[in-house]
Amino acid sequence: MVFKNVQALVFDVFGTVVDWRTGIAREAAEFLAQYAPETDSVAFADAWRRRYSPAMEEVRSGRRPFTRLDVLHRENLEAILPEFGINSAEVSPSDLESLNLAWHRLDPWPDAVSGLQRLKQRFIIAPLSNGNLRLMVDMGKRAGLPWDAILGAEVARAYKPAPEVYLRTAEILMVSPDQVCLVAAHNGDLAAARRCGMRTAFVPRPTEHGSNQTTDLLPTQEWDVIAVDFVDLASQLDA
Amino acid sequence: MVFKNVQALVFDVFGTVVDWRTGIAREAAEFLAQYAPETDSVAFADAWRRRYSPAMEEVRSGRRPFTRLDVLHRENLEAILPEFGINSAEVSPSDLESLNLAWHRLDPWPDAVSGLQRLKQRFIIAPLSNGNLRLMVDMGKRAGLPWDAILGAEVARAYKPAPEVYLRTAEILMVSPDQVCLVAAHNGDLAAARRCGMRTAFVPRPTEHGSNQTTDLLPTQEWDVIAVDFVDLASQLDA
Repeated sequence: MVFKNVQALVFDVFGTVVDWRTGIAREAAEFLAQYAPETDSVAFADAWRRRYSPAMEEVRSGRRPFTRLDVLHRENLEAILPEFGINSAEVSPSDLESLNLAWHRLDPWPDAVSGLQRLKQRFIIAPLSNGNLRLMVDMGKRAGLPWDAILGAEVARAYKPAPEVYLRTAEILMVSPDQVCLVAAHNGDLAAARRCGMRTAFVPRPTEHGSNQTTDLLPTQEWDVIAVDFVDLASQLDA
Repeated sequence: MVFKNVQALVFDVFGTVVDWRTGIAREAAEFLAQYAPETDSVAFADAWRRRYSPAMEEVRSGRRPFTRLDVLHRENLEAILPEFGINSAEVSPSDLESLNLAWHRLDPWPDAVSGLQRLKQRFIIAPLSNGNLRLMVDMGKRAGLPWDAILGAEVARAYKPAPEVYLRTAEILMVSPDQVCLVAAHNGDLAAARRCGMRTAFVPRPTEHGSNQTTDLLPTQEWDVIAVDFVDLASQLDA
């Protein structure tokens, strides 16, 4: 049996489980209709996301204490408004907060729920996301993601790809890292998990960044499992 | 609508959601059949549980760093063996470890799963237990407890009834304490939650300690809700 020793599958979420770009663009379109009607909502989503990793880097570098992603998202949202000609003083705070919570309302890729339901029969399944716990709870309830627990950055108090996130996750699950497998659409995340001793499963999401995506289309290492989607992953793992 | 402002229900687990005494006695009986055949397995369960609160008090008092409950349970199990005439040197370590994990395999009270399924439709539901995360995950998967997240002592790094546990739980849920309700069969737990500003729901479990139970049969304060079981609780909360 494949992964006989593995007790838990942990998942990257933004891009791997849910389609953040389509979801953010959809909600941004409503916001932009009011505040900047000529703006391309997909470009807005991309601009917002572009500040994601740099914001976390402030925490990873130790320059800033751990700060949950909802706060970073809100700061990043306010930071990009001028780029789109929006004067933040003219935006209603409740509209800003509502748009910020769009990250809590992202839709899963079509195979995600049915794949997770099968994988849950054999493994503990949990997100290992940089998203904060409440974000993951709201998303999971809305989308029907059948998580057994919510793990990730807020529980580990560190942001991926810092090794602490992977190691503390295994520790809280009371297993060694090689009894946990990270499932991700991003080679960099898998590489960090592998350096910590975790098993790895690559599920490419070739349209995460749109139809012209050039990154993460192919595995850059021989990951333990390579699957086309979560249903295929479940089949390969006898789940 | 009752609890219009409440977003999350958090649950005491040992005694409130699951019947620990029957479950531990059942697994202890198998163990005792081999190592001390004359022993009353219910007395053994009670002796084990009697060391639960004193062990956590070492952590609450600051004399010991936070240590997860599985470790405390194991120490307590080894400590009571001589009380029952068992020489721990003669016990196989794997039998001890298996018995220690009986806490991961407790059965819910008959109304718990159906009540939680209804409550989950309206509220975020999560354990707020002194049990560690892996214990709660294993128990939840086996029993079909539909938790949205696993909160509690290990996530908060403190043991109930320390106020930090309740306050950090509200903080991680990104709500004020009065937007969270603790559901518990124990007046003391509810009193600690109320002191932190949480809402309170009392669901008595009059046979948690057997048919001669004398404690926690009645509410000692006017809790926000008093229900006979989780199904009644769901009805009272319009869930």
